[in-house]
Amino acid sequence: MSIEKCYSLNLMKEKIEELKQGTVTSPQGFLAGAVEAAIKYKGRLDLGLLYSEAPSVCAAVFTRSTVKAAPIILSMKNNEKGRARAVVVNSGCANACTGDGGLRDAQDMAALAAKKLSIRADQVLVASTGVIGTVMPMDRVQNSIGKIKLLKDGGHKLARAIMTTDTRPKEIAVRVMEPNGHYTIGGIAKGAGMIHPDMATLLSFLTTDAKIESAFLARALKAAVDDSFNMITVDGDTSTNDMVSIIANGKADNDLITAETGKMFREALARVCRYLACSIAADGEGATRLVEVCVEGAKNRSQARKVARLVTASALVKAAIHGNDPNWGRVVAVLGRSGADMDERALDVYLQGEQVMRSGNPLPFEKNKLSHRMKSDEVKIKVCMNIGTGNAVAWGCDLSQEYVTINSDYTT
Amino acid sequence: MSIEKCYSLNLMKEKIEELKQGTVTSPQGFLAGAVEAAIKYKGRLDLGLLYSEAPSVCAAVFTRSTVKAAPIILSMKNNEKGRARAVVVNSGCANACTGDGGLRDAQDMAALAAKKLSIRADQVLVASTGVIGTVMPMDRVQNSIGKIKLLKDGGHKLARAIMTTDTRPKEIAVRVMEPNGHYTIGGIAKGAGMIHPDMATLLSFLTTDAKIESAFLARALKAAVDDSFNMITVDGDTSTNDMVSIIANGKADNDLITAETGKMFREALARVCRYLACSIAADGEGATRLVEVCVEGAKNRSQARKVARLVTASALVKAAIHGNDPNWGRVVAVLGRSGADMDERALDVYLQGEQVMRSGNPLPFEKNKLSHRMKSDEVKIKVCMNIGTGNAVAWGCDLSQEYVTINSDYTT
Repeated sequence: MSIEKCYSLNLMKEKIEELKQGTVTSPQGFLAGAVEAAIKYKGRLDLGLLYSEAPSVCAAVFTRSTVKAAPIILSMKNNEKGRARAVVVNSGCANACTGDGGLRDAQDMAALAAKKLSIRADQVLVASTGVIGTVMPMDRVQNSIGKIKLLKDGGHKLARAIMTTDTRPKEIAVRVMEPNGHYTIGGIAKGAGMIHPDMATLLSFLTTDAKIESAFLARALKAAVDDSFNMITVDGDTSTNDMVSIIANGKADNDLITAETGKMFREALARVCRYLACSIAADGEGATRLVEVCVEGAKNRSQARKVARLVTASALVKAAIHGNDPNWGRVVAVLGRSGADMDERALDVYLQGEQVMRSGNPLPFEKNKLSHRMKSDEVKIKVCMNIGTGNAVAWGCDLSQEYVTINSDYTT
Repeated sequence: MSIEKCYSLNLMKEKIEELKQGTVTSPQGFLAGAVEAAIKYKGRLDLGLLYSEAPSVCAAVFTRSTVKAAPIILSMKNNEKGRARAVVVNSGCANACTGDGGLRDAQDMAALAAKKLSIRADQVLVASTGVIGTVMPMDRVQNSIGKIKLLKDGGHKLARAIMTTDTRPKEIAVRVMEPNGHYTIGGIAKGAGMIHPDMATLLSFLTTDAKIESAFLARALKAAVDDSFNMITVDGDTSTNDMVSIIANGKADNDLITAETGKMFREALARVCRYLACSIAADGEGATRLVEVCVEGAKNRSQARKVARLVTASALVKAAIHGNDPNWGRVVAVLGRSGADMDERALDVYLQGEQVMRSGNPLPFEKNKLSHRMKSDEVKIKVCMNIGTGNAVAWGCDLSQEYVTINSDYTT
């Protein structure tokens, strides 16, 4: 699927360049690797490490779920000082709902990684993804972690090691050419189900070699995540294990980036996050379409975000898109239940660019033609509420029979 | 599907009796009928009338969606005086998002019905169900309404005329034997998709021949709906056309029922609403299971209701149930994102009566055995939060491939 359209941020293209084969280890001074530890299945990469050779600053955002997995609880603590420089991550077991034993396992994973890398254990973030309520097979983690080979192009392997129901790895890197120095931002992400992030989606790791202020890095990450990972949905379910982190090791030759000078860094980071977030939405479980919902003219930004997310999350809207059914009434039904302020008589609705509702009245359209135009990798819905200045964009995917099949027999 | 279990209210069984072949016209003095008006398709009942021969009191609850269909706007007005005694209803067209023209069409439907019945137009409630954003074919309504034959057993036809994706009609009547007089409550309902009511589900009509105070009738209806229709979900989407009404014509020989004497009426009405609501959940689009979610020991009733409804609405929980997958971690993930107060270490979770989590720790269980026990018409999930006294029960259904198929080509 082409997700070219995700690049619709108005960026100065001559200044931000996508790297070919870019990944989380594209920035200078980052190594990664992964091995087959047989955590849930044999014969697949499922345990990996990301490592910055130099001391670094870091920032991270975590799931807002009240039920937080053990690795999230530990990583929140280790992220507090902002000095983490490594991530140990596994797929196949979420280490969530595992009580005190689960927390000890997460601590042991950090300690094992720290020992291998000769750094302090509190400089390691731990992330896990997989089945909730199963205990981490620590013997297999312990036996395998030493076998991980850390390589300059190890990001590709790491991107595959974190996949669960994902059908493809999600990786990117961009080179930013600022007058006061060039630097690179790279990232990987995973996620296909239990995707309706309330902070960050299930696992994305970002890196940069930029010299950057720690406090600004945290703010820039939060802003980028809010308009990217926090605006996607696959199935409306929020994970216990969501986490996005960025490690900056300052290896590039740029001047220190601060809040005053950080405009381009902020935009480049937003672009990277948006690419990875849309990659997750487009690779949603069973998905055959990327769906983009633009809401304009809502009362405020918060209401625009809410409405956009609810439309992308509606099972009925998603199923209609799967069947190329221009049943726009389902979009308006979502607006109605959203609780957002609205004036039905001011409402305009567009489907694939064609206006189907004007000022609250249905417009005639050729059903077969519009249905045919929906047979596209990307389906766009635009809602103009025309009562305020709140705008937002959210991304999701269609709902297919395959989604149900995937989720009917996940643990058994 | 057996929904026997829905009758778990502790009622004095010798005093409330289900009538065989009971329907909305079982109470004395009610007539109904329906015809094929070809509103969307030919060859199916799609236009009907319900009529009380005597002057009556009525009560109704309506969708809380900001986008209300034209018939809802009109019926809210006509319900205000509490004297409605007829309902005209069609399937095949929701008359929603149809602007001022739609409102005129709803008014014309009320006027046509009033003329046929020789009553005032403001004594008629109008209800529509079907595709949103299509205009009512008023010529067909006008030509057909005169052909409706009003009969004492016409409730059965009316129950079929309001069906859309429903696979079976939903009807019931109970006879209540109070010391101070016997009376009957009857009802029909429809709904299979866009079911996540925020007030009442898409169309249920109730009748009673009880003599009853108007104000108490309204309160009893709201209470019954809150614990029945407002606790079911099929797909998380709330309709623009939801409406539940009850007409009481006082034909029975009971003493006037008031708030002081209304305990049994309240319970009988709750039982009727619960039966019809569970019938809708069990007949959800593509459903093969009725799912009951009990939440106990939440901080308060409001949080218990919210959590119970979110679990029944989770696509991942629903898909797991479809596949007999005892993946209880998905239930806990919903609790986590619910925003409800909780203490993970106090949490107990049961699936089909088997405890799978105790005090926040996973319990070992035999996956194949529990999976086998989930192959039942009814799947029960119980969550004990153990932090307060809030209890609630919600009902839903599983998510099947068939659901997607049904909703992929509804308008085209």
